[in-house]
Amino acid sequence: MKLVIVGGVAGGASAAARARRLDEHAEIVLLERGPYLSFANCGLPYYLGGEIQQRGKLLVTPLERLKVRYKLDARPNSEVTRIERALKQVWVRDRETGREYAEKYDKLILAPGAKPRVPEIPGGDLHGVFTLRTLEDTDRIFSRLKDVRHAVLMGGGFISLEVAENLVNRGIGVTVVERNPQLLMPFDPEMTSPLVKALRNKGVELVLGGRVTAIEMVDGKSLRVHLTDGKTLDCDLVMAGIGVEPESNLAADAGLELGVRGAIRVNGQMQTSDPDIYAAGDVVETRDPVTGQPGVIPLGGPANRQGRIAADHIFGREARYRGTQGTAIVRVFELTVASTGASEKTLKRLKMAYRAAYLHPNNHAGYYPGTQAMCLKVLFDPLDGRVLGAQAVGGEGVDKRIDILSLAIQGKMTVYDLEEAELCYAPPYGSAKDAVNMAGFVCSGILRGDQPQVTVGELLEHQKAGTLAAVLDVRGADEFSKGHLPGAINIPIDELRSRLAEVPAGRVAVNCQVGMRGYLATRILLAAGRDVVNLSGGYQTWEMFSAAGLTA
Amino acid sequence: MKLVIVGGVAGGASAAARARRLDEHAEIVLLERGPYLSFANCGLPYYLGGEIQQRGKLLVTPLERLKVRYKLDARPNSEVTRIERALKQVWVRDRETGREYAEKYDKLILAPGAKPRVPEIPGGDLHGVFTLRTLEDTDRIFSRLKDVRHAVLMGGGFISLEVAENLVNRGIGVTVVERNPQLLMPFDPEMTSPLVKALRNKGVELVLGGRVTAIEMVDGKSLRVHLTDGKTLDCDLVMAGIGVEPESNLAADAGLELGVRGAIRVNGQMQTSDPDIYAAGDVVETRDPVTGQPGVIPLGGPANRQGRIAADHIFGREARYRGTQGTAIVRVFELTVASTGASEKTLKRLKMAYRAAYLHPNNHAGYYPGTQAMCLKVLFDPLDGRVLGAQAVGGEGVDKRIDILSLAIQGKMTVYDLEEAELCYAPPYGSAKDAVNMAGFVCSGILRGDQPQVTVGELLEHQKAGTLAAVLDVRGADEFSKGHLPGAINIPIDELRSRLAEVPAGRVAVNCQVGMRGYLATRILLAAGRDVVNLSGGYQTWEMFSAAGLTA
Repeated sequence: MKLVIVGGVAGGASAAARARRLDEHAEIVLLERGPYLSFANCGLPYYLGGEIQQRGKLLVTPLERLKVRYKLDARPNSEVTRIERALKQVWVRDRETGREYAEKYDKLILAPGAKPRVPEIPGGDLHGVFTLRTLEDTDRIFSRLKDVRHAVLMGGGFISLEVAENLVNRGIGVTVVERNPQLLMPFDPEMTSPLVKALRNKGVELVLGGRVTAIEMVDGKSLRVHLTDGKTLDCDLVMAGIGVEPESNLAADAGLELGVRGAIRVNGQMQTSDPDIYAAGDVVETRDPVTGQPGVIPLGGPANRQGRIAADHIFGREARYRGTQGTAIVRVFELTVASTGASEKTLKRLKMAYRAAYLHPNNHAGYYPGTQAMCLKVLFDPLDGRVLGAQAVGGEGVDKRIDILSLAIQGKMTVYDLEEAELCYAPPYGSAKDAVNMAGFVCSGILRGDQPQVTVGELLEHQKAGTLAAVLDVRGADEFSKGHLPGAINIPIDELRSRLAEVPAGRVAVNCQVGMRGYLATRILLAAGRDVVNLSGGYQTWEMFSAAGLTA
Repeated sequence: MKLVIVGGVAGGASAAARARRLDEHAEIVLLERGPYLSFANCGLPYYLGGEIQQRGKLLVTPLERLKVRYKLDARPNSEVTRIERALKQVWVRDRETGREYAEKYDKLILAPGAKPRVPEIPGGDLHGVFTLRTLEDTDRIFSRLKDVRHAVLMGGGFISLEVAENLVNRGIGVTVVERNPQLLMPFDPEMTSPLVKALRNKGVELVLGGRVTAIEMVDGKSLRVHLTDGKTLDCDLVMAGIGVEPESNLAADAGLELGVRGAIRVNGQMQTSDPDIYAAGDVVETRDPVTGQPGVIPLGGPANRQGRIAADHIFGREARYRGTQGTAIVRVFELTVASTGASEKTLKRLKMAYRAAYLHPNNHAGYYPGTQAMCLKVLFDPLDGRVLGAQAVGGEGVDKRIDILSLAIQGKMTVYDLEEAELCYAPPYGSAKDAVNMAGFVCSGILRGDQPQVTVGELLEHQKAGTLAAVLDVRGADEFSKGHLPGAINIPIDELRSRLAEVPAGRVAVNCQVGMRGYLATRILLAAGRDVVNLSGGYQTWEMFSAAGLTA
């Protein structure tokens, strides 16, 4: 068996190592266009910021080890220019010598990754305008950083925000320009409000809903960035983090079937339309196991598993890729933002039935020092309670809860299962009723009819339709005075039973700070025969919508 | 509906709050023997150590709030002395006035908890000998602490170890005396070795396999503790953390059916043998969903959920307690130790088929600063791969992995599912191949036959039976020289292919440091037609067994 692999980073490197473990005698040729194989691309922003200090740390598996330990014919600077399927060979160009040669294969795995979009604007190709994909990109940016006082980051996605944090940590001023009205498009907009606040608190300038129209060189050195609104930004470096595109040109030229956004279409065993050619990583089309939709989701975890599965199938193992549900996380200063499964906007777009709930649990017992809060949003099936998606933003413990909810989605578990989840509890780690249990309680309560709730979006629709008699805020007068929903009346929860007569007739929406007191108020009003709904996640959630401009 | 609840802490308080939410008009009487309801019993050790500084923080829900917000007839200092089932009433003694009165009920929930075992030895009742259950216990210990230079903790369970850490943090010398040869009996012994090391590093004296036979007062003030080996320990305080017993005397006197260890037997709805009487919390017998065995597992999370389920059923909601799988966690200085599901010793005792695997993954990407390692042990079904149990010890991220594995057990998921788990990956949080994925790879590899492995225990059996030709250590010569398995020969992995002839004929056990290089060596030797097994978790796991005295 001769296996040729195109691309020597995440998916390709995983496929190669797995292949060797499965077949000691196979000939495995690992062709990487760049000078480095198996480098830590997710670590690049942290090297720029100096958190990762040794460049060598980014080389996960050194070339020598790939060659000796894994007995791989690993070739850096080797660009595959063409696939000749009929002859079962690829053409390779040695980028150091310029030599071109054909390499035969029995099986071929394509793992070339995705390339960053380059801004197609005047000046998009100027010296000082970068994209960040490879270690060489990083080296180029790094060598320039000492002269950079201000940087403009195009795009407000994961990599841009990681780079923003790292540049700020180096004392560099940062402006992020995002053409959409929110950061991190995979998230629902309200969940990104705390990010906006955190970034601005750290001095990052955010231009949301704006675009860079041109970049010009000033004094042969500085860059001037022109925005849609006519404003300009002067800076010393521009980085474009405006998305990536599957690098599927090789596959396309070879006539392999492509899917959405030009990604290579594969089956569950990562086989392309040519059964001798597999593909893995950021170049493939995957299916979302929650929505059933095809998509392109460039993530390190899936890339590694796909490479492994391709190798498994080639060497006769049973394996099936289950699709990518889009579990993603990013740290932005003190905040963590993470997501898994479907977002509300995706469910809406696909017209899938869902319910949403918000809560603001703590990472661990409130009586133990260092408690940090998070906002957790859970999306679930209104019929069977199956968890469809979750997003969280906050301090410590966000990653844990999204991981647990990711596994719940994978296991097709329901919000009733979350109620009964038996999770670690000691004061430094969790609560007797963990955030995940609380999510289960709230969502199950909605399905059982015990907790009639509305989201902020639904509340606004009710208000627009004139179907609400009043908004009743059951927080204390002191909390109420600091800010409340427009037109809300205030009856603190502990006085509600004695002041029931003051509650206007008709449908009432109740809110408190995070939803807990509102839930009890809802129960009290229901028992009094009233038509009532609780605002999911309370005033704190309202503020997140409000900050995202969604309540105006 | 008149609901009477006996016990006002975890299970009882949860039942009361849930009951109120489900029925605004029910009469709910919450009877607590002690002066405090709804206090944070899991926080008590941290108050002793000063980490929780304000005593008021331990009162989760103040009495006034229980009365006003939840409209509960909450009565502290109210001890229930008798249940008269025929009359559907309980007798209550007001501990402040001494008055006794009968309280009628429609439904009764028993949530009296469990009482700490008192050492039945001479001097076990001396002034200065304590157990830790209530806030009053804590107050008594706390007021004495300023005069304590050395404390003896009887028992090496969760609470003792938490107290040990907290006393050391106050500058108090600590000796822990545990009658068993290991700490934390719910864990497999080798997994507790790192704890022993951490405690001793912090100056804690450990007496394992020893017992306190008597305590005497010296100079009317100090205490002298006598041990089985004749040694004595002088100290100023003794705390007995030698287990708890369900406080089921009320239930027993009333003729309710009891289960193992005298715990109250309940059905899935937490009903006792009298359908009008429910029980919840540390007093009940639960069923282990993995082994099917009845047991008594006193844990905060389950207690709260049981209380909730009892209230659910009383007020007509569908709910079913699924049993307690025993997810537990404790912090001991810089270490975290956590467990879920069945231990290996339990599976062995019950003669259930299982396989075990060890690995030593990092909490997050190795190239990102602050990486911390853990040892993860996974137990799984050898036929279908279902996860049966997991234990972990290490630094950050232990709680997250055990929570994920706990949900996997709850969802009856398999090690194949762990391979495909899509977890959060960014350098500060995880790895492209997370610890949970790695566990899946290793365990699935065992089941598929790709990774023939033995545990240390199995290796020792092989050696005893003389079925092993050699132990082959494939680490570097430098690592080998620092310590290795008895009689092992050393061929570094990168030289193995060229030195195959040196590997003795017959069955060979391979080991490296954590199992990864050993796995590759196993593959190389299998391809050469050799009979080979890999030592699960490598030399590092061997050392854990060795430190626990299990390799001699």
